[in-house]
Amino acid sequence: MTHHRYSEAEISAVYRAIYERRDMRHFLTDPVDPELLNRLLQAAHHAPSVGFMQPWRFIRISSLTLRHELHTLVEQERILTAQALNEREQEFMRLKVEGILEAPVLLVAALCDQREQHVFGRRTLPEMDLASLACAIQNIWLAARAEGLGLGWVSMFDPEAVKYRLNMPQDSHPVAILCLGHVEAFYTKPMLEEQNWAERQNLGDLLFENTWNTPCR
Amino acid sequence: MTHHRYSEAEISAVYRAIYERRDMRHFLTDPVDPELLNRLLQAAHHAPSVGFMQPWRFIRISSLTLRHELHTLVEQERILTAQALNEREQEFMRLKVEGILEAPVLLVAALCDQREQHVFGRRTLPEMDLASLACAIQNIWLAARAEGLGLGWVSMFDPEAVKYRLNMPQDSHPVAILCLGHVEAFYTKPMLEEQNWAERQNLGDLLFENTWNTPCR
Repeated sequence: MTHHRYSEAEISAVYRAIYERRDMRHFLTDPVDPELLNRLLQAAHHAPSVGFMQPWRFIRISSLTLRHELHTLVEQERILTAQALNEREQEFMRLKVEGILEAPVLLVAALCDQREQHVFGRRTLPEMDLASLACAIQNIWLAARAEGLGLGWVSMFDPEAVKYRLNMPQDSHPVAILCLGHVEAFYTKPMLEEQNWAERQNLGDLLFENTWNTPCR
Repeated sequence: MTHHRYSEAEISAVYRAIYERRDMRHFLTDPVDPELLNRLLQAAHHAPSVGFMQPWRFIRISSLTLRHELHTLVEQERILTAQALNEREQEFMRLKVEGILEAPVLLVAALCDQREQHVFGRRTLPEMDLASLACAIQNIWLAARAEGLGLGWVSMFDPEAVKYRLNMPQDSHPVAILCLGHVEAFYTKPMLEEQNWAERQNLGDLLFENTWNTPCR
């Protein structure tokens, strides 16, 4: 029952990427090799997708004007988010939540238009398209970590405003501004854990058996 | 700029898992080592999550009665999906879409309750909780592939019916029935590609520059 198992070194490499991957907000401005970027996008394209619909689209932002406009949109939402956080407003405002202006590669990840024709696996759970796109982004994240690059997923923006600026169809949906680049250092723990925003929960508290809130034996 | 880069062998292992991972629906009944299962769940728990909210919950289905009830729910939705597919109904009904009764490990993956308190990164995109859970499942998928195990994500069910059977809170949300186990063979291509349900798109058609539908230079 072990003939499909990778070598111990290969298994360790996969877990290493999983454990060392971080959501990065600090980047060096050194350029990213175009072939490396292509490898990452190919990795994304080999993610699982519901009914093999491949709903992912990636918009590379090479225009400096657009980059600044996206940064402005995120900054607007950052302030609205802070206000919505009430008593944690000041604490939140001290966090660095994105590296849009520094990252050498900026991508907007979006769900494609005309998704309603895809019924396979989505009749009762239409949001499975987003799950597929998230798996694609996780592929980029892990491959990037192995290649030595950091990635940050920014989801603080008004999706309608982003759609307008990138001429996206009404029924498409942007879900991530991805900041990609070399980094000085990877955070040793998730930045929000390092900064005491939140703690890692105990895995045992998140696992149930047969019925909600019943711990596994 | 390369000091964070893994060795070539490690990088290859990460890409190998990404390219060889498959959505499996055929399983052997051999048991899964509990320590291996724990490693996979720890990998899931080290996925990125929006605002470090860790919204993932996993319900291990050890009850044979519950397993059969979940299978019945999926079978009901499979027929409704087939009807919704109109002219592809018969083609769809010939596909094997799940391995719920065979897989030695069955997990329901769900979003936790009381998610509305998590505003960080979700004020305008509340669905980022699902994106986090999908990244966690992709971690399981890749780690399982390296460990030689197959995983299938079944999203054909009425989430309300699953919630009722597992005593889940009204504001929680099941998004996957995960079938996990050893396999005779991994599909060489996605099963839906092998069975001519859909073709892999050209990556270049999914990449734009600055504006929708404008190919990258």
